[in-house]
Amino acid sequence: MLVNHQHFRTIWPDFTGNQPRVKIIDQTKLPHAFLIEEITHLTQMIVAIKTMQVRGAPLIGASAAYGIALAMLENTSDSHLAESAKKLIASRPTAVNLNWAVQRMLQKLNALPALGRLNAAWDEAAAIADEDIQLNQAIGRHGLVLIDEIYRLKARPLHILTHCNAGWLATVDYGTALAPIYAAHDAGIEVHVWVDETRPRNQGASLTAWELAQHGVPHTVISDNAGGHLMQQGDVDMVIVGADRVTSNGDVCNKIGTYLKALAAHDSAAFGHHIPFYAAVPSPTIDWHLNDGVNQIEIEERHADELSWMSGRLANGDIASVNVLPKGTKVANPAFDVTPARLVTGIITEQGVYAPSGLINMKKSI
Amino acid sequence: MLVNHQHFRTIWPDFTGNQPRVKIIDQTKLPHAFLIEEITHLTQMIVAIKTMQVRGAPLIGASAAYGIALAMLENTSDSHLAESAKKLIASRPTAVNLNWAVQRMLQKLNALPALGRLNAAWDEAAAIADEDIQLNQAIGRHGLVLIDEIYRLKARPLHILTHCNAGWLATVDYGTALAPIYAAHDAGIEVHVWVDETRPRNQGASLTAWELAQHGVPHTVISDNAGGHLMQQGDVDMVIVGADRVTSNGDVCNKIGTYLKALAAHDSAAFGHHIPFYAAVPSPTIDWHLNDGVNQIEIEERHADELSWMSGRLANGDIASVNVLPKGTKVANPAFDVTPARLVTGIITEQGVYAPSGLINMKKSI
Repeated sequence: MLVNHQHFRTIWPDFTGNQPRVKIIDQTKLPHAFLIEEITHLTQMIVAIKTMQVRGAPLIGASAAYGIALAMLENTSDSHLAESAKKLIASRPTAVNLNWAVQRMLQKLNALPALGRLNAAWDEAAAIADEDIQLNQAIGRHGLVLIDEIYRLKARPLHILTHCNAGWLATVDYGTALAPIYAAHDAGIEVHVWVDETRPRNQGASLTAWELAQHGVPHTVISDNAGGHLMQQGDVDMVIVGADRVTSNGDVCNKIGTYLKALAAHDSAAFGHHIPFYAAVPSPTIDWHLNDGVNQIEIEERHADELSWMSGRLANGDIASVNVLPKGTKVANPAFDVTPARLVTGIITEQGVYAPSGLINMKKSI
Repeated sequence: MLVNHQHFRTIWPDFTGNQPRVKIIDQTKLPHAFLIEEITHLTQMIVAIKTMQVRGAPLIGASAAYGIALAMLENTSDSHLAESAKKLIASRPTAVNLNWAVQRMLQKLNALPALGRLNAAWDEAAAIADEDIQLNQAIGRHGLVLIDEIYRLKARPLHILTHCNAGWLATVDYGTALAPIYAAHDAGIEVHVWVDETRPRNQGASLTAWELAQHGVPHTVISDNAGGHLMQQGDVDMVIVGADRVTSNGDVCNKIGTYLKALAAHDSAAFGHHIPFYAAVPSPTIDWHLNDGVNQIEIEERHADELSWMSGRLANGDIASVNVLPKGTKVANPAFDVTPARLVTGIITEQGVYAPSGLINMKKSI
């Protein structure tokens, strides 16, 4: 990913000092400031995960892996390894990738004598980060084919709508939903992205808009309410979103509001537009044990403050937060929703693009 | 309407001083402060309309009528009357009710000698305000019947979702979409309102939540993204919204995002919920000349600042605005969308409740 024309990952080890450190981009300061934070201890990494300085399922996984590597600097004993893993998993209990990455580190390190664990931990964390990048690049290649088909058909700049942030900031690099868009842009296809603001945490307005700008991809921020109107008018050529979980039958659980955009894409057929709706995910995000997202996936209810408090720049440039609600107002804040498979055109994975009903074939092949 | 247990209208004349004045509630200060502003001259009323101290189609109409009355205090000549009307109409050119109210004042006053215009102007403005209240009360009575039917069927507290502010703040009193809800609450029906935040101007979060609280109606603010999920889960029993324009075939043009909620209400049938979707409007809001809202209604594009700047209270209680977007981000801000008649269960008017396809019969009867 590019920041001020320089290539970055969202997380990387730094071996230049007396002992290894991990560097991250503090995402709570974006888009108002680009700050790199130095993480030297596990406890610091846990704070970074809890406070969402690092966020996005794949990046949380890589951060947890590097957290174990930092813990090994202190002590490579069985007990310290087990204790560190436990603390990390407790830092965001609902994050599937976090648990997955920690279990993978445990499996690798528990099989080694304590003396061999330090180097192995840094190597395994690096492998997890590198693999995330490879998955995302593959998603980008498969999604690029879809974009290219529509581009050839329409022979004009394409308008792609996305919701929330499933870009490189949510991963180690390239992103999931945005990987095909970056690939298309880099291949010379004229793409313009409609960026949903994504209330209540504003990840579209603050993170997606910022990273697309850094990479030079044309984009326009819209309220979450505007997508339906734009689709009715034929101003959207395709929708690509990420997902937090996909069920084996192709139901897509993603940031709250995704379902409403899928409905509008589906309804666009009534206006002659037939806008395809894709979710882009690495295969580990598919939960093969579930086959009914609406009834089987529990939706996390997040804190009311996410809706009532807004952060931004005052006219003088200072960063401040304001409360927009009448005092004492009750708030409900479900964080995700489920888009039924019948509204999903396809799932873009590192293995290829699958119709929701065809996902099950992919399971057989991997 | 009740504010701190005292009854108010949103606009009223005050004849207690040396010369008549008009009082309004400054809606730009809500929900953080309840300020009554005194308007003594037409120029001041035009500023109040332009800066949205008064807002909502019916209230803008009443405000314009009182603007003409104030102008007559200065001078009742033909030329001053014509000039005042022109200035008022230019203050918000897209507001249908503003033009309607000014034309009605002109028709009344032009027919009178200059000497008779001053008293007639104040009387006619009062008539316009009173008629708005009567229309809204009738909408409330007809809507109450619908709510009561569902309440009897479900025999538990009802959850009604609304979008934007079509409450008493948008009218002289009682509101349009909220009139049935106030009527139901006052009749002892247990109603709870899901209040859409309504980005980008936050009229739900700041105005609807505030006025429901003043009247003691239970409510919860949600992000605009949350309604679809709540409907899937069966947590919404009906949707009632206002409208800026309704076409003769029953297409509903209302605040951006309304269409997405209508889609979700319609799709709720797939989950066994069949949530009805109603628009509540006085009959003058029906545009009998149009029969295809999506293609015939031009959608106003509003200023980018509405999306990028958020107003609220700092932690110390001061009111401030923050810019939430990366510097230089492009914004698109369509203000309304059109919900096709096929997604609309009924139109609640002062004449009764009509299926979209039956509206045309109402035209014949009025």
